[in-house]
Amino acid sequence: MASYNISDIDSWERFYRANFINSLTGFKSVSLIGTVNEEGQANLAIFSSIVHIGSNPALIGYINRPIEAAPHTIANIKATKVYTINHVHPSFVEKAHQTSAKYAADTSEFDAVGLTPEWRENIEAPFVKESRIKYALALQEIIPITLNNTFLVIGKVMSVHILEDILGDDGFLHLDKSDTICCNGADGYYTTELSARYTYSKPGIVPKKIQ
Amino acid sequence: MASYNISDIDSWERFYRANFINSLTGFKSVSLIGTVNEEGQANLAIFSSIVHIGSNPALIGYINRPIEAAPHTIANIKATKVYTINHVHPSFVEKAHQTSAKYAADTSEFDAVGLTPEWRENIEAPFVKESRIKYALALQEIIPITLNNTFLVIGKVMSVHILEDILGDDGFLHLDKSDTICCNGADGYYTTELSARYTYSKPGIVPKKIQ
Repeated sequence: MASYNISDIDSWERFYRANFINSLTGFKSVSLIGTVNEEGQANLAIFSSIVHIGSNPALIGYINRPIEAAPHTIANIKATKVYTINHVHPSFVEKAHQTSAKYAADTSEFDAVGLTPEWRENIEAPFVKESRIKYALALQEIIPITLNNTFLVIGKVMSVHILEDILGDDGFLHLDKSDTICCNGADGYYTTELSARYTYSKPGIVPKKIQ
Repeated sequence: MASYNISDIDSWERFYRANFINSLTGFKSVSLIGTVNEEGQANLAIFSSIVHIGSNPALIGYINRPIEAAPHTIANIKATKVYTINHVHPSFVEKAHQTSAKYAADTSEFDAVGLTPEWRENIEAPFVKESRIKYALALQEIIPITLNNTFLVIGKVMSVHILEDILGDDGFLHLDKSDTICCNGADGYYTTELSARYTYSKPGIVPKKIQ
C-alpha cells in the first residue's frame, strides 16, 4: 500500500489534489439540479454531493460550493424556494457533464447542452424530461459551513416521478433497471451491476440475501 | 411514468417509505467508520452518507442519525477527535452490512463480524485491514441539523492508505480497479464499470473523453 500524510496532500498541485480528494470518498450519486431565477430564467447544473438526511420527513441535502465558484443554483433556490433533482443516464451523460461549464446567468444550460426542460403542475422549477427518476424539493434550510465557505442546502421532497417498473414491492428503487449513472471524482461516470441486497442486520444473525 | 406527491409519501408504511426515499438520491458510497471510545474499545459501523465538502483543505463529511438511533460512532468521535473511513469490497460486503446491527457499546464490531482492526502510527482509531482504500480524519466540526436531529460531522483528512496501482497520473483514484463497492438504499450493494471520464467543461466546447 502507498501512504500519504497531510503534508504530502498540502504540497500537491491544485488539480492533482482535487482529483485525489474527490475520489477518496468513493462512488457518488450524480444528478442535475434544475432551478429558475425570479424572472423565470431556467438553470441546470450537475452535482455529485447529494446526501440523504432522513426519510420521515423526507429530507435531502447537497453541498453548494462557495458562492463565487457556484453562484446560480443557490441564488435561485434562495429566491424561489424550490428545485428539482434529476438522475443521469448513459444517453445524456456528456450533456450532463457539460452543464458544469461556467455559463452566464442569462444562459439556460438546457438550451446550451441540448436537454429538455419539463414543467409540471405546482412546481416552479424545471425537471429534465430525459431523466427517468426525478423529484422536486421545497427549501427547508441553508446551513453555512464556515470551515470552507460552502453550504449544506436541505430540501423536503414534494413530488417524485419515476419509471414505473423500477419500484420494488418494498419501496426499493432498482436503480440499475433505470440505468442511473454514478460518478467518481469530478469527471468519471460509471454504470453499476447489483451484487446483492441483504436482510436487516441483528446481532448474532448472519444476514441473508434478499430474493 | 408514475408520480407520487408528499401526501402519498407521508401515508406509506415506515420501512416502505425508508426504502423509497433512501434510493431516491441515487447510488452512494458505502464505507466503514472506525473509532474508539476513551477506554480504547473499538467500534466499527457502516455509513452511506459520506459527502465531499472540499479539497483544499481536504474536508469530508457524513450524516450521523439521531443520537438515540446511532450513538456510538459520534460519541467516540467527540471523545477522541479522530476516526477512520474504509472502503468496502465484495470479499467482505456481508460483514460490512452486519456492522449495522445494534451491538452493545462494549462489543467490538470487528470481533462480532470478523474483520481485522489495523493500528497505524499516530492514529488512535482503528482502520480495517481488509480495506484497499482508507483514510484517517481529525474532527473539525459537528453541525446539528435541527430539522430532524441529525448531525453533519466534518473531518479533515490526516492520512491516506491506498492500493498503489489505482492512483492515476492526475491524482484520480481508479475505484473500479480497487473493487470499491457502492450502495443503493439501506441494503443494496453494487459493483461498477467505468463508462467514461470527460475533460473539464467550458462553454461552447464539447467535452472529450479522457484516455
